[in-house]
Amino acid sequence: MTPETENRIGGWRRLVEEDLVETLEDGAAIAPPLHDAMRHAVVSGGKRMRPLLVLASCHAGGGLAENAIPAATAVELVHAYSLVHDDLPAMDDDVLRRGFPTVHAKYGEALGILAGDALQTLAFETLAARAPDPAVAVEQVEILAVASGRLGMAGGQALDILCDDGSADLRTVEKIHRSKTGALLAACFRLGAAASRCDVATASRLFDAGRSLGLAFQIHDDVLDLTQPSEQLGKTAGKDRDTSKATWPAVAGLDVAKRDAIRLADSAFSTLEPLGRAADPLLALARGVVSRTK
Amino acid sequence: MTPETENRIGGWRRLVEEDLVETLEDGAAIAPPLHDAMRHAVVSGGKRMRPLLVLASCHAGGGLAENAIPAATAVELVHAYSLVHDDLPAMDDDVLRRGFPTVHAKYGEALGILAGDALQTLAFETLAARAPDPAVAVEQVEILAVASGRLGMAGGQALDILCDDGSADLRTVEKIHRSKTGALLAACFRLGAAASRCDVATASRLFDAGRSLGLAFQIHDDVLDLTQPSEQLGKTAGKDRDTSKATWPAVAGLDVAKRDAIRLADSAFSTLEPLGRAADPLLALARGVVSRTK
Repeated sequence: MTPETENRIGGWRRLVEEDLVETLEDGAAIAPPLHDAMRHAVVSGGKRMRPLLVLASCHAGGGLAENAIPAATAVELVHAYSLVHDDLPAMDDDVLRRGFPTVHAKYGEALGILAGDALQTLAFETLAARAPDPAVAVEQVEILAVASGRLGMAGGQALDILCDDGSADLRTVEKIHRSKTGALLAACFRLGAAASRCDVATASRLFDAGRSLGLAFQIHDDVLDLTQPSEQLGKTAGKDRDTSKATWPAVAGLDVAKRDAIRLADSAFSTLEPLGRAADPLLALARGVVSRTK
Repeated sequence: MTPETENRIGGWRRLVEEDLVETLEDGAAIAPPLHDAMRHAVVSGGKRMRPLLVLASCHAGGGLAENAIPAATAVELVHAYSLVHDDLPAMDDDVLRRGFPTVHAKYGEALGILAGDALQTLAFETLAARAPDPAVAVEQVEILAVASGRLGMAGGQALDILCDDGSADLRTVEKIHRSKTGALLAACFRLGAAASRCDVATASRLFDAGRSLGLAFQIHDDVLDLTQPSEQLGKTAGKDRDTSKATWPAVAGLDVAKRDAIRLADSAFSTLEPLGRAADPLLALARGVVSRTK
């Protein structure tokens, strides 16, 4: 990564953090503990990978990254809501995330459910109230809703739960990965493209790259679960295997999984290359997505 | 109610039911049981009071009621999601609703959480993908998000949970009622007004009437809980009192509660009257909201 790209991404990261804090400010809170729980879900760490991909995609499409800030915040709120609900006792039943108590562990299960619900709502409010113009806002609401709903993240999470008996084949695992995590990651590219108002050919490149990277991301995640120690991951390693989760290494083998992640990521990189220097930050972030060790 | 008004509302009711069924069709379902759970939450009964208020408000504003169908469907999806999550073991822990098993009782708690989540997402997708034009869609997304989020329904539900020790005063009960149920009911009037593109004075009448009726609705609901037998309500009567819930009769007395509901409803009716015959269906529905016996 060149120092220029690194600086640019660093500046974006600060903008994202500031905007998340502002978006989660209390205002005229009806139930302050709900707001505390929502903030706890969002501001206690996280790599901000998705918001940065939104800003970098907007930049790659020739737009001003700042125009994509509402979308960047919205996608992080949806990601946060999904983690809060995934951690609930009826789902993954996790009491720790990134070394902090999970929302329901700290605030109780009822506030955990409600904080997740309200984070999702706030994502759509943020897009509608703050996107630069109505046509872009509507497009972004639809992109985010499709990616995170019954045919995207929520659908994939449901399929994942229904397939935790170790019976899934590779086609099913691909379906789970593309929907459960891939769709929201791909949506980051689409949200950025929408904010940039780029031409159709550029948008199409960004869509394709996002789709490939989304799947590569989750396969890489499966590989990390098997190959990294718990201390490195900040969560229990090998949990996928121990719970018979439908993962790429489980059905295709670890070596094939590693190769597939690299192949898909390379495909994303070469799709982005014709966009030239404007795509440098996006390429750097995309490389980070599949080279991270936690 | 005149036969003309009755016919009109009957026609709208059929449109709403049809649109809900279509909106919840499978398409390329990733996880069919999730779709089943979502349908179970929406299509097993319900008075469709909120969608009908949306259509009638659009009509009262001089618009074509059909233009408000996406908003009518969206508000019912949000209402349904809130019931699914309210019924969860960590919240009200109900296994029956309208004589049917609740979603989590039938599909398990994990799918209950996810079905609620995906119903909320589908509400915003419906507005963005189907509202007649971008400016109206964006306005409606914001109205629905504000009414149902941390400063509306979810916030009110959180405050209600935090106040279930019988310590709430009337000001707090008003805050709970206005946010937990009143905000979404008032949003129906706003969503209809937005779809009708009526002038500011008419919109303002609709907003004010919705706000008064929203509070009247919940006070009336509190009164019904105390005065109607379980068989009539289709749920356990007297549950509010037995669980020390913050209700209007509990803090103001039953007689005052009855009077306040009538006073607020009358205020809504007289606010609507200057809108003339276009407001007839809305007035008929509004009267039904506070004269219902279940």
